[in-house]
Amino acid sequence: MRIVRALSGGEAFFGILKEDDRIERLEKAPFDEIVKDGREYLLDEVTLLAPTEPTKVVCVGKNYFDHCEELKGELRDDIKLETPILFIKPSNAVIGHGQVIEYPCVSERVDYEAELAIVISKKAKSVLACDADKYILGYTCLNDVTARDIQKREGQWSRAKSMDTFCPIGPYIETEFSPDGKRILARLNDEIKQDSNTSLMMHKCADIIEFITSSMTLFPGDVIATGTPAGIGEMHKGDIVEIEIEGLGVLKNTVG
Amino acid sequence: MRIVRALSGGEAFFGILKEDDRIERLEKAPFDEIVKDGREYLLDEVTLLAPTEPTKVVCVGKNYFDHCEELKGELRDDIKLETPILFIKPSNAVIGHGQVIEYPCVSERVDYEAELAIVISKKAKSVLACDADKYILGYTCLNDVTARDIQKREGQWSRAKSMDTFCPIGPYIETEFSPDGKRILARLNDEIKQDSNTSLMMHKCADIIEFITSSMTLFPGDVIATGTPAGIGEMHKGDIVEIEIEGLGVLKNTVG
Repeated sequence: MRIVRALSGGEAFFGILKEDDRIERLEKAPFDEIVKDGREYLLDEVTLLAPTEPTKVVCVGKNYFDHCEELKGELRDDIKLETPILFIKPSNAVIGHGQVIEYPCVSERVDYEAELAIVISKKAKSVLACDADKYILGYTCLNDVTARDIQKREGQWSRAKSMDTFCPIGPYIETEFSPDGKRILARLNDEIKQDSNTSLMMHKCADIIEFITSSMTLFPGDVIATGTPAGIGEMHKGDIVEIEIEGLGVLKNTVG
Repeated sequence: MRIVRALSGGEAFFGILKEDDRIERLEKAPFDEIVKDGREYLLDEVTLLAPTEPTKVVCVGKNYFDHCEELKGELRDDIKLETPILFIKPSNAVIGHGQVIEYPCVSERVDYEAELAIVISKKAKSVLACDADKYILGYTCLNDVTARDIQKREGQWSRAKSMDTFCPIGPYIETEFSPDGKRILARLNDEIKQDSNTSLMMHKCADIIEFITSSMTLFPGDVIATGTPAGIGEMHKGDIVEIEIEGLGVLKNTVG
């Protein structure tokens, strides 16, 4: 099942995206149960929003073997990798498929980062990896947009990754999806820039959920971004950036 | 005016705390206007909550001259200080006056950090320092609780500062308050551990608001923590920690 959020006639709602591009509107958020309200829309009649409204996006840094290799010497690499490195993207950063990534005047280098994202279905604290599946609503594509110059200069990554529009998510949440062995791509103006596989993730989804919830409660709709593979690079105004994950569609945004 | 949030009979509400410890209940959040609903409570009849429900707490690191001095060599000090260093505490960390700071099993050193906090009154983006006052609802005390061992080990501060209950805020928001030249204290089991003055802040409140909103939208109720002075130290289970700022009362929590 593919879950979307959409805007029509000034109203935002959750819906189920069908194979024929119809959207079946839901009465409420899809966390506890799926209740259709009978209304239907065509995909091209609505504006897609980010498919979830997270209280926070918890991100894992340096989680692909190939990306760590390319970062060597560029960012601090004295960080120990036995446990995931976490950072937070707040809700002001979240936008949906088709929305504009605003190039901020405070940065001179803004990068794309293709990531597989987990969407949480219910309040999660102290969850064991073996139980993690029970807390997952589904998976989606995420672009961990980063002001690379600021990230390097400040050491702490928060500001460089928390700017408005720096967290495109979508286009939909796929509830039937296995996160292992999936091709993950970033395209910039139709040119493939990142082309890797989720099998190269050091810390796997279930372990990440155990690790995060050992100290931090996750709420329904919260998002975990699981790190980016090799091939990161910069974007410029006017660029079109696409994140594609096998089975999760294409998240497309322009840089404005 | 002193704004609180309180819980009574299972209902949470905003209120005005009067000199005689009465609370005048408000109809709604105090951002646009103050509308009393006629009901009154005594302070000791209710449970105080954090006086705001932020979508995020944006924190400034290393913002007191005396604290930077004590940190030398202990944390990375190659970070440039021309601009503030930011990090985010998510909403799962927020608790109120009187609530318990949970000592997490993942850390062996949990510290207090006394901080002056700004509470935002309206949506703020690209705000100039000279206009910053128009976006401030008021000020309150904040304890930037930190798992110091994890902060040192991981380099990125996010996880060490984002754990559940790691952001006590309160007891109230004072709307008539000037942030300059105020004594700021932390007491642990009645012993003074931090005793400094907000005049030692490198980046002042108005400048911090300009800096943050140059790239990040702040929403009504969002909080900015303005950094801690010298004297940080560790807490143990059973400790009572108090943050006191001249004119803002005492934020008291136990460690559990």
